[in-house]
Amino acid sequence: MKSGLSFLVAALRCEIDALEQLARTSELVGTIARLVHGLQRERGISNVLLASRGQRFARERVEQLAQCELLEAAVRQAFEQLDADGGSIGNGARLFSRIAWVLPGLNALPELRRRIGAFEIDADRSTAAFVKLIAGLLAVVFEAADGATDPEISRRLVAMFNFMQGKEFAGQERACGAAAFASGQNDSARQQQWLHLIASQEHCFERFVDFSEAGVAGLWRASQQPAQLAEQERLRRIACAAPAGVVLDTNLSQTWFDGCTRRIDAMQAIEERLAAELRALCDARTAEARHQLAGHQALLETLAADDGIAATPAALFLDDDGGTPEPSAGAAAYGPQLERSILEMVRDQSRRLQAMGDELDTVRAALNERKLVERAKGLLMAHRRLSEEEAHKMLRQTAMNQNRRLIDVAESVLAMAEYLPAEPSR
Amino acid sequence: MKSGLSFLVAALRCEIDALEQLARTSELVGTIARLVHGLQRERGISNVLLASRGQRFARERVEQLAQCELLEAAVRQAFEQLDADGGSIGNGARLFSRIAWVLPGLNALPELRRRIGAFEIDADRSTAAFVKLIAGLLAVVFEAADGATDPEISRRLVAMFNFMQGKEFAGQERACGAAAFASGQNDSARQQQWLHLIASQEHCFERFVDFSEAGVAGLWRASQQPAQLAEQERLRRIACAAPAGVVLDTNLSQTWFDGCTRRIDAMQAIEERLAAELRALCDARTAEARHQLAGHQALLETLAADDGIAATPAALFLDDDGGTPEPSAGAAAYGPQLERSILEMVRDQSRRLQAMGDELDTVRAALNERKLVERAKGLLMAHRRLSEEEAHKMLRQTAMNQNRRLIDVAESVLAMAEYLPAEPSR
Repeated sequence: MKSGLSFLVAALRCEIDALEQLARTSELVGTIARLVHGLQRERGISNVLLASRGQRFARERVEQLAQCELLEAAVRQAFEQLDADGGSIGNGARLFSRIAWVLPGLNALPELRRRIGAFEIDADRSTAAFVKLIAGLLAVVFEAADGATDPEISRRLVAMFNFMQGKEFAGQERACGAAAFASGQNDSARQQQWLHLIASQEHCFERFVDFSEAGVAGLWRASQQPAQLAEQERLRRIACAAPAGVVLDTNLSQTWFDGCTRRIDAMQAIEERLAAELRALCDARTAEARHQLAGHQALLETLAADDGIAATPAALFLDDDGGTPEPSAGAAAYGPQLERSILEMVRDQSRRLQAMGDELDTVRAALNERKLVERAKGLLMAHRRLSEEEAHKMLRQTAMNQNRRLIDVAESVLAMAEYLPAEPSR
Repeated sequence: MKSGLSFLVAALRCEIDALEQLARTSELVGTIARLVHGLQRERGISNVLLASRGQRFARERVEQLAQCELLEAAVRQAFEQLDADGGSIGNGARLFSRIAWVLPGLNALPELRRRIGAFEIDADRSTAAFVKLIAGLLAVVFEAADGATDPEISRRLVAMFNFMQGKEFAGQERACGAAAFASGQNDSARQQQWLHLIASQEHCFERFVDFSEAGVAGLWRASQQPAQLAEQERLRRIACAAPAGVVLDTNLSQTWFDGCTRRIDAMQAIEERLAAELRALCDARTAEARHQLAGHQALLETLAADDGIAATPAALFLDDDGGTPEPSAGAAAYGPQLERSILEMVRDQSRRLQAMGDELDTVRAALNERKLVERAKGLLMAHRRLSEEEAHKMLRQTAMNQNRRLIDVAESVLAMAEYLPAEPSR
């Protein structure tokens, strides 16, 4: 007759499987972070190249492309490894679907680079292509965070995702500002977009701090040097508070770009630290679960060796008052004492899993914001036949016009869903 | 260079894995439903045997025990099968943990039966033991519903769980009423408990109707025969509205028991129908996904056979406006047209998975009620050193005294968590 212990072992095996998958996904996230950083640099360099009609950054670009190709190969390999491992993670389907979405973007990189090198594309379109590709990579990281089954690891992944997203907004702000200063003027549409990028990145970094450990959050605060921040805020103020028609000093373009770049490069060190901590946490959690499993298996063998024990638990289940049992003495204790300690182990595990599930729900709630925005975008795309970019722009524009947060506008759109006309037939 | 299509295939494989696991879990739920029904009958029969000091139902009990042993063997086998299959379902650990919890209860059945046969246990304690065991089996069904990754299947599992839970409350009401009539009186504590069982079962059946298909909900309504309902309500009124001290007609005990039994037996037919529909749905969803997979794989081979295609998608990704593409012509269309249709497939799948995730969240929210009650119970157990039974009783008593729903009391308890003293050291 099989005892509860065998299924306690089965439960632990499931946990270990899930943790090992999380370790692979976390590894993937670190690899993606490195590629995203490389693409952000490439985007900046390409813009300077395009703006200067090839006068500047031609050599830097060659070096950066070589770097990016290596990083891309690592990401591709991680994708294939995930596929080879079967990836039966909870949301494996969604994760693979995001990868399927981003791969054409990676495949398109050589053509994008050719067009940039031949000046067949302007800086705006080049930026848009990189933004789209990086958004696709971030969506993979988002799914990895959303699919995590361990609350502590999920928490770090949420911190990592928000940090990466915040860094990407900072990168977009660099491009936006560089273009404004280079052109010598800032129109109100660009000012609005710029302010939106500032608000979005601040929101992301707040989220990151909420979900990260004290150590890495401290590192982040320490990296924000007051003198650099003051200079950045000064340049932001000059460009964003300038009335229409005021001429901007085009020399500030380089100052702005260099300042932003220092800040973004400093962010990468924190990203690496986050990735390293994530790896360490996955390893520690897996080792812990394996240790527990070994203990349970030893106990199972003890039980199998002693036939008399299988008959004892009945009285325990029937007379068990659910109260505090005597302290369990582990595998060394035989008979009713052993069975009582197994019952207590089952109860402990069940409580632990329940507490983990509750905490996981809380952590994942932090990801709902993005999901709501995605859902509102989907609704607009279907009902107004908009592209994804157009839908996002519409939401953002509404948020700016009404001085509301994007998430609030998304909620209003979803709440008004039934008032929208039915999906037009295609 | 790998195309997005390979990962579309990987995503589908994950979906199929998850569906196959869901099919096994659904099968298990059907098997558990049958055992629970058997145990409910055995509980009723044992009570009559105990109350009549062996004068009645001795033969019926022997037959029922034989029946229950077969049903139990089927459940045990399904548990082991799930273990052998590795059960890497999203919440596999929680599911196995519930099984680990319920197994000692099944192992204790022979001893429980021996005590009943030897009249070493009274009807109240016997009922309590069966209630506890059935609650453990229902917890397994709950986890199965909570872990489902397909919203439609999850919906049916939620309906099934609520139906089974409602039926169990009906079974407890049968025992409660039979004991009241048999003793010739009803005290106010039993009246309160009885009214609580009525309210709880009605709530469960409403939930069941909310989440079940029109066909099975109609079957349920049709099974509720007005004459039977009227008779049941008459007996409920006689017993529950009787002032303290009023003597009840002990002959009504049998009338009550038989009426309830007819009603509960009719419920089993609906349970079987629910289980059959669940199986059919799992099969249909799996077949659908397999069909799609075969189509994708054929397309993959087409792509592999034509080297020229891998180079084409770049322009599509770069120039793609996200708008409506021309209708895709499937595998027969080569070149950009084919790539465009793949891009559209990736987009469709991503939208479908997102919509499924959203709907799943909605369906699972229906399970939160029970989770909140479990969480409040856990809090009381920890802070007031209560057994699970005592914690549940305390919540229920508070709900009755304050004329509030159990879920509202649970929410208040959780909201007041920080005011509770710290967990006493053990």
